[in-house]
Amino acid sequence: MEAHNGLSAKIVQEAGFQGIWASSLSISASLGVRDSNEASWTQTLEILEFMSDATDIPILIDADTGYGNFNNVRRLVKKLEQRDIAGMCIEEKQFPKTNSLLEGAKQPLADIDEFAGKVKAAKDTQRDENFCVVARIEAFIAGYGLSEALKRAEAYHLAGADAILVHSKEKTPHQVISFLEEWRDTSPVILVPTAYNTTPTDTLIKAGADVIIWANHLLRSSVFAMQKTAAKIYSDQRVDNLDSEIAPVAEIFRLQDVNELKQAEKQYLK
Amino acid sequence: MEAHNGLSAKIVQEAGFQGIWASSLSISASLGVRDSNEASWTQTLEILEFMSDATDIPILIDADTGYGNFNNVRRLVKKLEQRDIAGMCIEEKQFPKTNSLLEGAKQPLADIDEFAGKVKAAKDTQRDENFCVVARIEAFIAGYGLSEALKRAEAYHLAGADAILVHSKEKTPHQVISFLEEWRDTSPVILVPTAYNTTPTDTLIKAGADVIIWANHLLRSSVFAMQKTAAKIYSDQRVDNLDSEIAPVAEIFRLQDVNELKQAEKQYLK
Amino acid sequence: MEAHNGLSAKIVQEAGFQGIWASSLSISASLGVRDSNEASWTQTLEILEFMSDATDIPILIDADTGYGNFNNVRRLVKKLEQRDIAGMCIEEKQFPKTNSLLEGAKQPLADIDEFAGKVKAAKDTQRDENFCVVARIEAFIAGYGLSEALKRAEAYHLAGADAILVHSKEKTPHQVISFLEEWRDTSPVILVPTAYNTTPTDTLIKAGADVIIWANHLLRSSVFAMQKTAAKIYSDQRVDNLDSEIAPVAEIFRLQDVNELKQAEKQYLK
Amino acid sequence: MEAHNGLSAKIVQEAGFQGIWASSLSISASLGVRDSNEASWTQTLEILEFMSDATDIPILIDADTGYGNFNNVRRLVKKLEQRDIAGMCIEEKQFPKTNSLLEGAKQPLADIDEFAGKVKAAKDTQRDENFCVVARIEAFIAGYGLSEALKRAEAYHLAGADAILVHSKEKTPHQVISFLEEWRDTSPVILVPTAYNTTPTDTLIKAGADVIIWANHLLRSSVFAMQKTAAKIYSDQRVDNLDSEIAPVAEIFRLQDVNELKQAEKQYLK
Repeated sequence: MEAHNGLSAKIVQEAGFQGIWASSLSISASLGVRDSNEASWTQTLEILEFMSDATDIPILIDADTGYGNFNNVRRLVKKLEQRDIAGMCIEEKQFPKTNSLLEGAKQPLADIDEFAGKVKAAKDTQRDENFCVVARIEAFIAGYGLSEALKRAEAYHLAGADAILVHSKEKTPHQVISFLEEWRDTSPVILVPTAYNTTPTDTLIKAGADVIIWANHLLRSSVFAMQKTAAKIYSDQRVDNLDSEIAPVAEIFRLQDVNELKQAEKQYLK
Repeated sequence: MEAHNGLSAKIVQEAGFQGIWASSLSISASLGVRDSNEASWTQTLEILEFMSDATDIPILIDADTGYGNFNNVRRLVKKLEQRDIAGMCIEEKQFPKTNSLLEGAKQPLADIDEFAGKVKAAKDTQRDENFCVVARIEAFIAGYGLSEALKRAEAYHLAGADAILVHSKEKTPHQVISFLEEWRDTSPVILVPTAYNTTPTDTLIKAGADVIIWANHLLRSSVFAMQKTAAKIYSDQRVDNLDSEIAPVAEIFRLQDVNELKQAEKQYLK
Repeated sequence: MEAHNGLSAKIVQEAGFQGIWASSLSISASLGVRDSNEASWTQTLEILEFMSDATDIPILIDADTGYGNFNNVRRLVKKLEQRDIAGMCIEEKQFPKTNSLLEGAKQPLADIDEFAGKVKAAKDTQRDENFCVVARIEAFIAGYGLSEALKRAEAYHLAGADAILVHSKEKTPHQVISFLEEWRDTSPVILVPTAYNTTPTDTLIKAGADVIIWANHLLRSSVFAMQKTAAKIYSDQRVDNLDSEIAPVAEIFRLQDVNELKQAEKQYLK
Repeated sequence: MEAHNGLSAKIVQEAGFQGIWASSLSISASLGVRDSNEASWTQTLEILEFMSDATDIPILIDADTGYGNFNNVRRLVKKLEQRDIAGMCIEEKQFPKTNSLLEGAKQPLADIDEFAGKVKAAKDTQRDENFCVVARIEAFIAGYGLSEALKRAEAYHLAGADAILVHSKEKTPHQVISFLEEWRDTSPVILVPTAYNTTPTDTLIKAGADVIIWANHLLRSSVFAMQKTAAKIYSDQRVDNLDSEIAPVAEIFRLQDVNELKQAEKQYLK
């Protein structure tokens, strides 16, 4: 499940999900910039660190192109491991990237060998054997067909990718399902049903998907709520009528774990 | 109206509000840490810069104690002005601070002269004559009465404070209204009706308040919505039934102003 | 004159130089990383901000490729202006860049139109009319001849570049002098005599150079001194015999301007 | 041996020293600010991370007061361990601190119990059993005598401090030697002979010191060299006569380990 800061990450964990998707779209949007590498990679890394500090479940970062070439990827892997991030998904585009769902955007792909080099560099760099490198196939997004997608997935699999994420912006899952049929479980496959959101999850799982990422729904939920609340306060000029739509201050304090600090003060401040 | 990142700041602006309250509680909570100076002042400053980049209306930062002594305040003012922040509210507590609404927390106040020195240092440092320094009176929060609150407000007013923010955690506005009666418009007064949220805004304005800050309601609204959405997705394992509760992806793109980038690409990329 | 942090920048200013070259090689080396965009652009920006805070003379940043495409350049210009940086030099390479003096390194150039678009985007973004955009010609570095260098310089000049920096790694200045002869003062020209360091400065000025940058000599001087001092302390296991080779602690305090703080404490701390 | 950035840290390691002292004075001075917590703790942390990335030997950070109370110390320890910092020295002053060697500065000490709480909180937070917490006794600096210094050292030792650093600004080591005599090896003792720099190291070791820190000599060496080089270039307007006083560009490249990148390019870029 998507999160974009420490708070939403904690909400994901408390809801019971097994892992967190640190979405590039959500993080950039919450910062107030575009999903086009306007925030630097270390600014994103700082958000990641807060997310990691606030939670105990695995975080998979949506790391765009890796923010440069194989050498930037090597540095990134080191920095992610230091911050207890469980894995990294990189996509075969060119820096700076453009969001895959943006209509009319050009999506030039990376050279296969160059991207496979990135995957291999990442795997060679990691020190924690559990760190996970996911290669994200953008061939469908860029207008290519199944054979190009498979060729690329195969190359990245051979380069060491732990899993393949196949992306599609079609409203039906036909592209990703055709991929799953041919891929035949060569390695785990991750799907992101944002565009084809009406397909039952079961259908995707039965087709062979190993992981489903709901990639931006907490952010979108918060935008909807904040716009509604802002409009209401602006028109009513009062806040006493919001109790059924906003969390109490005490719930904010609970999410911040203020009780732990109170206990610690007793122990360390006399 | 409160905001805590670039996105919520833009939502505040689009709703029509005249200014943005960069709340310390909200910013710390959204980062996933406590409102006890766990994030460094430059980490907060970076959030502020994103908020400023995303908006055109004035931002008033809830700057806790100024993050140290008068010298830290001087540096802070310079950094805020460089990032086009309109003003700064500092409170008469000791570093690291504790949130004023936290039950049972000790709230030791700063020495009056020391805090007045901070106010004076801030005013002497600013280069933009419109930069605004607000002194936040925590006497009521700390358990003192009206005369202490007035004595402190007077000292900070004389030190150059452009406005006074009087805080109270009572459920009724009696403390702040008694203050307004005695203060008699010596300088502008700001109120934060979080605890006494059922008092009609008109009552506060008629009592002499110049500015009302709704200090954390967008954050609380987003927490409520994200918790609900997370629970629903976790139980239903689907996202197609959320359309009436979440913003479309296209709305996220609009908030990020992707169209400006598309236009600019035509101009600068051939 | 080159500087790489707040301290060296202040030393440059105190020596009487008219401007500071915030060298990418020096800054990366002082951080301990390679001159290949291993540090993020915001990490470099933070160093720049400290340099700007410590000085009053103009700082020209060696901004590599602009750290991405025209859109990254636009954001960079805004951030530099906010930090009182006087100008930016960008070079026609591809991100991530490689240092121009590195033997045997591939140096693929940017497409002319794409780089001219960056220059134009920078000029359109600046708000301070004095902000300066320098286009750095890497054609000689990449193995091209004079006509390519001139063609590129002309394109960037037409796109709005305030000055041209022509780089060469030859041990004699023949390339840059041939450029100056043909350029005939179309716009100001900047030279960086690191490789052709034995050419008298007068020769370069008479040939038409408008600005000479000594691009890395303070860093190299500090490395030489620190290596010598470290070796001496390690072998002698004493520090009393260093007085003629190290600045007194009092000189460090003076460079930090501790006296201003002492005075301010009298004024603001009672 | 002191270092203040990635480059000087690598020089310390290459010289053969067993550990690096990340000096607060040196780091602040190199950034161009005062040793009074003008840089935020996360800005210092970023410098530390570059130092750690550039070296393999243990780094002990001069962490001032811990940048706040016990809770700030807890967060600091977590962040230091993530960045592979070997240990932390905190001093019994109040935030923001003042450099101990600054003449005429007030040096109010922390309350003993409060500081002991910080030490205990640090020890309880660390996950790596080798992480080292050093308590720095400032009693002599603040004008107190031996008994106060011993009382404080004892309290911090009981709170779990792995070592004691006794500081003195006297020109002779009489204070620290008197401390060593009474302390009788209760725990390891660290000395910083900046003021009493003429005392032979052997004398300090024989008196019982376990570790000697040369706390600022690389920075002071670099300032001396940069000032001399800057003056010379400014007056001569040439750089060809500096070869015996500056490191070659190739030496900078070597320190940046460009060869490793060249090799890696062969492997990952085809």
